[in-house]
Amino acid sequence: MSPLNLLAAAVDRIKVPSRDEALAARYAAVRRYTRELAAPLSSEDAAAQSMADASPAKWHLAHTSWFFETFVLKPYRTDYREFHPRFEYLFNSYYRGIGELHPRDQRGLLTRPSVHEVMAYRAHVDKAVLEVLLRDALPPAAVDLLELGLHHEQQHQELLLTDIKHLFSMNPLLPEYRPQPLMAAEAPPLRWRLYSGGIAGIGHAGRGFAFDNEGPRHEALLQPYALASRVVTNGEYAEFIREGGYRDPRLWLSEGWAMVQARRWQHPLYWNHALDAEFTLHGLHAIDPQRPVCHISFFEADAYARWAGARLPTEFEWEHAAGEARIFGQFADQADAELHPRIFTELSSEPMYGSVWCWTASPYLAYPGYRPAAGAVGEYNGKFMSNQWVLRGGSCASSRSHLRPTYRNFFPADARWQFSGLRLAKELHHGT
Amino acid sequence: MSPLNLLAAAVDRIKVPSRDEALAARYAAVRRYTRELAAPLSSEDAAAQSMADASPAKWHLAHTSWFFETFVLKPYRTDYREFHPRFEYLFNSYYRGIGELHPRDQRGLLTRPSVHEVMAYRAHVDKAVLEVLLRDALPPAAVDLLELGLHHEQQHQELLLTDIKHLFSMNPLLPEYRPQPLMAAEAPPLRWRLYSGGIAGIGHAGRGFAFDNEGPRHEALLQPYALASRVVTNGEYAEFIREGGYRDPRLWLSEGWAMVQARRWQHPLYWNHALDAEFTLHGLHAIDPQRPVCHISFFEADAYARWAGARLPTEFEWEHAAGEARIFGQFADQADAELHPRIFTELSSEPMYGSVWCWTASPYLAYPGYRPAAGAVGEYNGKFMSNQWVLRGGSCASSRSHLRPTYRNFFPADARWQFSGLRLAKELHHGT
Amino acid sequence: MSPLNLLAAAVDRIKVPSRDEALAARYAAVRRYTRELAAPLSSEDAAAQSMADASPAKWHLAHTSWFFETFVLKPYRTDYREFHPRFEYLFNSYYRGIGELHPRDQRGLLTRPSVHEVMAYRAHVDKAVLEVLLRDALPPAAVDLLELGLHHEQQHQELLLTDIKHLFSMNPLLPEYRPQPLMAAEAPPLRWRLYSGGIAGIGHAGRGFAFDNEGPRHEALLQPYALASRVVTNGEYAEFIREGGYRDPRLWLSEGWAMVQARRWQHPLYWNHALDAEFTLHGLHAIDPQRPVCHISFFEADAYARWAGARLPTEFEWEHAAGEARIFGQFADQADAELHPRIFTELSSEPMYGSVWCWTASPYLAYPGYRPAAGAVGEYNGKFMSNQWVLRGGSCASSRSHLRPTYRNFFPADARWQFSGLRLAKELHHGT
Amino acid sequence: MSPLNLLAAAVDRIKVPSRDEALAARYAAVRRYTRELAAPLSSEDAAAQSMADASPAKWHLAHTSWFFETFVLKPYRTDYREFHPRFEYLFNSYYRGIGELHPRDQRGLLTRPSVHEVMAYRAHVDKAVLEVLLRDALPPAAVDLLELGLHHEQQHQELLLTDIKHLFSMNPLLPEYRPQPLMAAEAPPLRWRLYSGGIAGIGHAGRGFAFDNEGPRHEALLQPYALASRVVTNGEYAEFIREGGYRDPRLWLSEGWAMVQARRWQHPLYWNHALDAEFTLHGLHAIDPQRPVCHISFFEADAYARWAGARLPTEFEWEHAAGEARIFGQFADQADAELHPRIFTELSSEPMYGSVWCWTASPYLAYPGYRPAAGAVGEYNGKFMSNQWVLRGGSCASSRSHLRPTYRNFFPADARWQFSGLRLAKELHHGT
Repeated sequence: MSPLNLLAAAVDRIKVPSRDEALAARYAAVRRYTRELAAPLSSEDAAAQSMADASPAKWHLAHTSWFFETFVLKPYRTDYREFHPRFEYLFNSYYRGIGELHPRDQRGLLTRPSVHEVMAYRAHVDKAVLEVLLRDALPPAAVDLLELGLHHEQQHQELLLTDIKHLFSMNPLLPEYRPQPLMAAEAPPLRWRLYSGGIAGIGHAGRGFAFDNEGPRHEALLQPYALASRVVTNGEYAEFIREGGYRDPRLWLSEGWAMVQARRWQHPLYWNHALDAEFTLHGLHAIDPQRPVCHISFFEADAYARWAGARLPTEFEWEHAAGEARIFGQFADQADAELHPRIFTELSSEPMYGSVWCWTASPYLAYPGYRPAAGAVGEYNGKFMSNQWVLRGGSCASSRSHLRPTYRNFFPADARWQFSGLRLAKELHHGT
Repeated sequence: MSPLNLLAAAVDRIKVPSRDEALAARYAAVRRYTRELAAPLSSEDAAAQSMADASPAKWHLAHTSWFFETFVLKPYRTDYREFHPRFEYLFNSYYRGIGELHPRDQRGLLTRPSVHEVMAYRAHVDKAVLEVLLRDALPPAAVDLLELGLHHEQQHQELLLTDIKHLFSMNPLLPEYRPQPLMAAEAPPLRWRLYSGGIAGIGHAGRGFAFDNEGPRHEALLQPYALASRVVTNGEYAEFIREGGYRDPRLWLSEGWAMVQARRWQHPLYWNHALDAEFTLHGLHAIDPQRPVCHISFFEADAYARWAGARLPTEFEWEHAAGEARIFGQFADQADAELHPRIFTELSSEPMYGSVWCWTASPYLAYPGYRPAAGAVGEYNGKFMSNQWVLRGGSCASSRSHLRPTYRNFFPADARWQFSGLRLAKELHHGT
Repeated sequence: MSPLNLLAAAVDRIKVPSRDEALAARYAAVRRYTRELAAPLSSEDAAAQSMADASPAKWHLAHTSWFFETFVLKPYRTDYREFHPRFEYLFNSYYRGIGELHPRDQRGLLTRPSVHEVMAYRAHVDKAVLEVLLRDALPPAAVDLLELGLHHEQQHQELLLTDIKHLFSMNPLLPEYRPQPLMAAEAPPLRWRLYSGGIAGIGHAGRGFAFDNEGPRHEALLQPYALASRVVTNGEYAEFIREGGYRDPRLWLSEGWAMVQARRWQHPLYWNHALDAEFTLHGLHAIDPQRPVCHISFFEADAYARWAGARLPTEFEWEHAAGEARIFGQFADQADAELHPRIFTELSSEPMYGSVWCWTASPYLAYPGYRPAAGAVGEYNGKFMSNQWVLRGGSCASSRSHLRPTYRNFFPADARWQFSGLRLAKELHHGT
Repeated sequence: MSPLNLLAAAVDRIKVPSRDEALAARYAAVRRYTRELAAPLSSEDAAAQSMADASPAKWHLAHTSWFFETFVLKPYRTDYREFHPRFEYLFNSYYRGIGELHPRDQRGLLTRPSVHEVMAYRAHVDKAVLEVLLRDALPPAAVDLLELGLHHEQQHQELLLTDIKHLFSMNPLLPEYRPQPLMAAEAPPLRWRLYSGGIAGIGHAGRGFAFDNEGPRHEALLQPYALASRVVTNGEYAEFIREGGYRDPRLWLSEGWAMVQARRWQHPLYWNHALDAEFTLHGLHAIDPQRPVCHISFFEADAYARWAGARLPTEFEWEHAAGEARIFGQFADQADAELHPRIFTELSSEPMYGSVWCWTASPYLAYPGYRPAAGAVGEYNGKFMSNQWVLRGGSCASSRSHLRPTYRNFFPADARWQFSGLRLAKELHHGT
C-alpha cells in the first residue's frame, strides 16, 4: 500500500482533523495531483527538455520533492536519511544558498535517474513528510515551509503542463496530451467596468498563506480607470493581425519590434501560418474566435492594446478591481477541465480569474518594505525583480486553490509559452 | 564669417531680444558647444564606433543636425533644400515613422561623409534655422520642436563624451581627451535626510520645456523614507569589493549575477585589475577614495545597496527630495569643469544634482495618462518603456541648463559606460 | 515469433545458401546486433540528444530502418506499405534529394514515436526486406543498396556507442553503459617501420563492397617514410600535457590554438581535471598509461605529433603500410570486447586496425575521377568533402566485418567524441 | 627631403648597383607603392575596419613597417631605437613567438596613432633600413628577411585594396576608390587545353625568392586532365544563377549549402539584387558579362563547376599547366591598371595569371618534407594549414613582380572579399 493510500485510509478513520491532519490531507491531495498530471506521459515524454526555459516533467516531479527534502526534512527531521546523495545537486533549481547546482539547460540530459526512481524518490519524501506531520512533530516554521512547498508544487503543476505543451508542439507528430473534444463557447460582448480610483489597499494582509512578494500590504493611489469585463478573444486578435499589427513598428515598444523582426513573430505562439488552427494540449484544433487569445508575449499584449486604443491595466488596478469578488472561472482542477482557455461565464457574471493569465503594465518589483524570507528560501521570489512583468488572475492550467486576489505571477516580456493573454484597461478622465 | 558668428554680431546689435531672438541665441550657444566638445578629436577619433551602444562623434554631430532638418526645416520651411539626399537615411537614429534607417552597429563604417562634410552640413542647417528664426517665421509647433531639438542636442553632447571615453578606453595607448590634473576633493560624512512621505506631486507641470515622458504631472503616494546626503564614494565601493561583493550571489538580482559571471565583472567599468587606477577623460588616474563611484550598472548599484543594508531610492522619492531645491553641483558647462565626477559641496550645502547620474529603483514607465507626441517625434521617448531603469540628477558630463527636478534619464540595467553611480535610500518605519 | 527468429529457423533448414540467403543471414545478424547494442538503454537513455553532433539511440534505430525503407523497399518492392507517413520526414538524416527533413539539433525532442514504436518499425522493415530477399526478388541494383544499408547500419552502430558515451558523460551520476572491469594491458615499445615509398596503388579495386569514396583505385606517389608500430599511449600523451603542450601556441595550428583558448581544452575529452581518471562506457576508470590515448581532436593529434618531433601519416601512407596485412585488432564484435581502447598485440604481431581511429594528415577529398552514386544516395559521402580529415583503421567500437584497408572515416578537425587517437609518422631522408 | 627621395637621388648617382643597392632600390619602390595605394584615402577611410577578416589601411601601413622593425632592425641593427614602445604590441598580426598581440577585431578602434604618426613610423623604419642596407651591413639571414618583408608588403598591398573595397561597399554612399571608366572587353571562347599527366615537378626549386610553403620541390603524379583556356565569366555565372544554382542543394557541398542558407547568398559578393550592377573600386558599374566572375567563395566556385559538368583543378594541375610560361596578364602595377578584373588577351595568347585568383580543388597543406623557418617568422605560413584552400595565379590587385608559378595563396572556403574566381578543369579519360 502506497504511503498516500495509507494516509487516505488513516484520514478516513479520523473525525475532527487536527491542524496537521488537515495539512497532511492537503499535502496528499496536492502530491497526488502532480502524479496524475504526469500520468499521460511516457518516460520519454517525461525526460525531454524543449528549451532552456522549460523543464522535463521528470525534473518537476523530482524538484518539488527536493523542495520538501531540502527545506523541511533535512532541517527539521533529524532522523531523515536522504534518498540519494547527488539529488541535492541535481534537483536544485536556483537556490545558490544551498550550493552548486546542475546547469538549467542540461536538465533534458538527465536520463538517469529514471522516472521510476524519481517516483520512488517522491514516495520516500511523502512517507517522511506524512510521518512527521501525523505525529505533530513539526515546529511552526517548518509548517510554514511545508505550506510554501505545496504552493510551490502547484506552480510546478502549471509549468509541467506548459512545458509539455511546448515539447509536444515541437514534435511533427503533434501528440495530444489528453485527447478531448473542445466545447463550443460564446464570448459575451466586451463592456467597460468603471472604477473611481483613490487610495487602495494593495497586497496580502497576513491572514492565510501568501508568497513573500505579495506583501507587505500597503496603500497605493489609483487614478480613475476602466477595465474590460472579459479578456481579449482570438477573433479580436485576428483582426489586429489582419490590419497589419505585426507589420507596423509604431504599435510596438522598441524592444518588442526588435523581437518581431528577429524571431519573425506573426501570430500567437501555437497558431499555424494559415491562422486557422492552433496546437493545444488536446491536439490541433481550429482557432475559435470566441475563445481568449493566448500564448502571447507582453510585447504583443502591449501592441494589441495600443492598436485597440487602450492599454494594459496595472497590477494594482487589477487587484483593486478583483477586490473581494468570489474566485471563480476556468481552472485545471475542475471536473472535465479543458486545458485550453475559453471564455467562462456563470449566469450573467464574468470572472476575473482563470482561463488566461493577464499581462499587466506593471514590472515585477518589491512592494514598499519588502523583505525576503531568511535563508536560502529567500531566493524564492526576490531575486527575479528585474526585467519581468506581472501577470494576474491564473489560467486554465492553474488550480483554483492556488489563487488569491493578491497573487503575482511574473515572466520576462518575451515569454510566450505560458497561458498568457490580456484584459484591456483605459484611463477615465473627469467627465468621461 | 560663419552663420554662428553672424548671429553673434546680430545679437550684439539688438536691445531687447524677441522670443525668437532669445531662442536663436540659445540655439547658437548649444550648437557651438557641441562643436567645442568635438574640437579635441582627430577625424579618426570622430569616426570610430567602439560598440553598438555607442556612436561616433561624427555621427552625433550629424544626427543632431538631422533632427532640426527633419522635424523643423523640412516640415516648416518650404524653401528648404536638403543638404544631401542620403543623409535622411544615414543619420536617422531610430525614427521608423521617417523611413528606413542605417543599421546602428555600422555607424563606424561611415568614413564618408567626412568630418568636414558633416561640419558643412551643420553650417547649412544652422544657416537655415537662424534665418527662419530671425525673421520670426516659425509657427509655435515648430518652435516647440526647435526647443526639443536643443535639449536633444544636449543629450547627445553627453553621449559624445561617454562614447569617446569608451572608445579611448579600448585603445592601449590610453589617449587623453583633455589633459588636465584632477583636484583633490574630500567627501563629507554620509548623513541621512528624513522624509515623511504622503501624497506628492510628481512630474512636470507644464511651465517651460520638458520631455513628454516627464508628464503628466500627477500624485503619488510615498511611504516615509530616508535619503543619503551624498552619493556613494570609491572608497565605500572598494570596501564592498574587498568584502567579496562580486563573489556572493546572495547580494545580487538573479539576472545581475548572471552578468557578473558571463562578463567577469569584478569592479567598475574603467578600473584596472589592481583596483588602484581608473581611466578618465583626463587620462589614467589613481582611484581617489573620496570621489563618487561611477560607471557601474544598475545591478552593481542594487547589489551595493543590499550589501550596505539599504536600497536604491525610487524616482519619486528622489524627485520629492529634490523638490524646489536650487540646481547646483558639478556640470560639464562650468568653467574649468573636470569631466570626472567629484563630490561637490558648497559651504555646508550638498547638491542633489551633477557628478553622477543616480540609478533609481524605478523601471522606466509611462506616467498615468501619458501620451507621446503626435507623428514620428512621438518615438522619442515612449517606445523605450521596457527593461530600462530611471536615473536621476545629471552628471559631470551634463549641462546645467539641461536639467530639471522632473528630468528622467533611462538606460538598460547592464549599461556601464554612462557616468552612473548611486545614492542610498532606506525605509523609515514609524517610530524610527 | 519475431521475423528475425523466423529467419533463423528458415536458415537452419536450408543446405547451401543462395546469394540472397547469405545476404539475408547477414542482414539478420547486423540488424540483431544493433538491437543488442541498444539493449542496456532505458527508453529515456535512448531518446536523449546531448549535442547537435550526436543523435539519440532511438533515432539511430529508426534512421537505419528508414535507409532500407527509402532506398530498397519503396523503389524496389511495389507492394510495400510504409510504416508511418511522417517517418520519411522524421528519420531522414541529410538526403535533400528525398525531401524536407527534421532539424538535426531537435532529434532529442522526438519523444514520440516511442522506442517501442521504433522497434515495431524495425520489425516491419525487417519483415519486408527478408520476404523480398528470400523470394530472390531484388534486382542487382537493389542488392547493392541493401549491402550499402548494412554497412551504413554498422557505421551507426559505432555512432550509437559514441553518442551514448557522450550523453552519459554529461550526467553527474556517470552511468555505466556496461559495467565491466578493464583488463591490465602493457604497451610494447614504439618501433619505427620503414617504407621506401614510390608509386602505390590506392583505393578500392572493385572486388566486394566499398563505399563510393574509396574509389576509383589510382596510383599515388609516396616519399620514403617511417610509421610507428603502435598508436600513442595515455602515458606518452600525459607527458605532452605535463610539458605544457596545451599552453604553447607554437605547437598548434592557428585554428587549433583558437579552439584551445575558446573551449579551454587542457586534456582529452573524457579525462578529469586531476588527469587521473577518465569516463568510459564501463564507468569511471583510472587512466591507464599503457592504453592508447583517445577522444582527441585532429588539432590535438597534430600538436602532439609536432611536439614529438614527428607528424601524422597521410592516409595514403597508412593504406600503403596496411597493405594486404590481415585485419586483426580490438573490435566491438569480439567476445568479451572492452568498449575502451587498449593496445592489442598478438604474439609478436602488432595490428594496424582497431582500438582507436587514427587521425591522418589528409583532408577528406575525392579521389581522381570520383563520381558519387546516382540519385539521392549519392549524397552519402561526396558532399562532405570540405573541412574534414580522414581517419583510418577502425576502433574498439567498430565491427571487424565493417573494415577494409581502403576504408576512409572522416570528421571535422575539432571532433573529439569519436574513439580517435593517433599513430606517428616521419619523413625518411636518403641515408637515414 | 624624405628618406625615399634621398635614396632615389643616391641611386641616381651610382653606376653598377651592388646586391644591397639593388635591394635598396626595390625596397624603396615597394614601400613607395604602398603609400601610393593609400593616397586616395582620407584619414577616416584609413582607420576603419569593416569586418574581423579585414584590416584598416592604416594598420596595413603600420604592420608592414612593424615587420621590418621586428625581424630585421631589432635583431640585426644593434643601434636601432624603436619608434614607439607599444607598437610591437599594436601592430603584431599573429606572431605569438613575439609576444602578446592586440585583438584582431579591434583594429578599427585604434584611432591613435594617427595616419600621420604611422607615416612617420614608416619613414623612421625606411631610414633605418636604407642606412643599414647602403652601408652593406646586413648578414645574409637579414637580407633574406628583408626580401621576405618586401613580399609580405606586396601581400598587404593587395589586402589594402580588398579591405578598402569591402569597407566602401558597406557605405550607402558607395565611394569610389579611384574614379575611372571601365574599358569594354571581349572574352574569347572557352577552349580546353589537354595535359597528359604523369610525374610532374611541383614546388619551388630554390633559385630566387619563394615563401617557405612553396617548397620543398617534389614530384607529384598527375592523371591526364584538361584545363580551360580562360576563367569563367560573369555571363556564364549569371546563367548558373538563372538556372537555379543557388536553390539546388545537390550542386553544393553540405557545408556550402549551409552557408547559402544561413547567409542568404544569391549572387557574388558585390552584385546587387537585380543582378545588373556590381560595386567596384571604380564605383558602381553595370555587370559586364564578358568580364571574369569575381568575389565568389570556394563553395560557389565548386558548385558552379559541378553545374557546368566540370571540376576545379588541383593546384598541381594548375602549376603544371603554368609551367615555364611567361607571366603576363592583368596586374595592379601596370600603367592605367583597372582594379576590376577583365579577360586579358595578348594577340592570340591567353594568360594563366592575373585578373582573378583561381580557387583550386586543393586544401592548403604542407608539401612533403616541409619545414617552417626557425623562430617567430616560422609562423608566417605553416600554422594556417587547416580548413583553407589554395588559390593560384594572382589577380588584378596583385603586383606582377610578386608572382611565381609556384605561388600559393590560401583562404577559408567561405571567403569572398578577395578577387577570387575560377578556371574549370576536367578529367581526361583514356581515349578521350
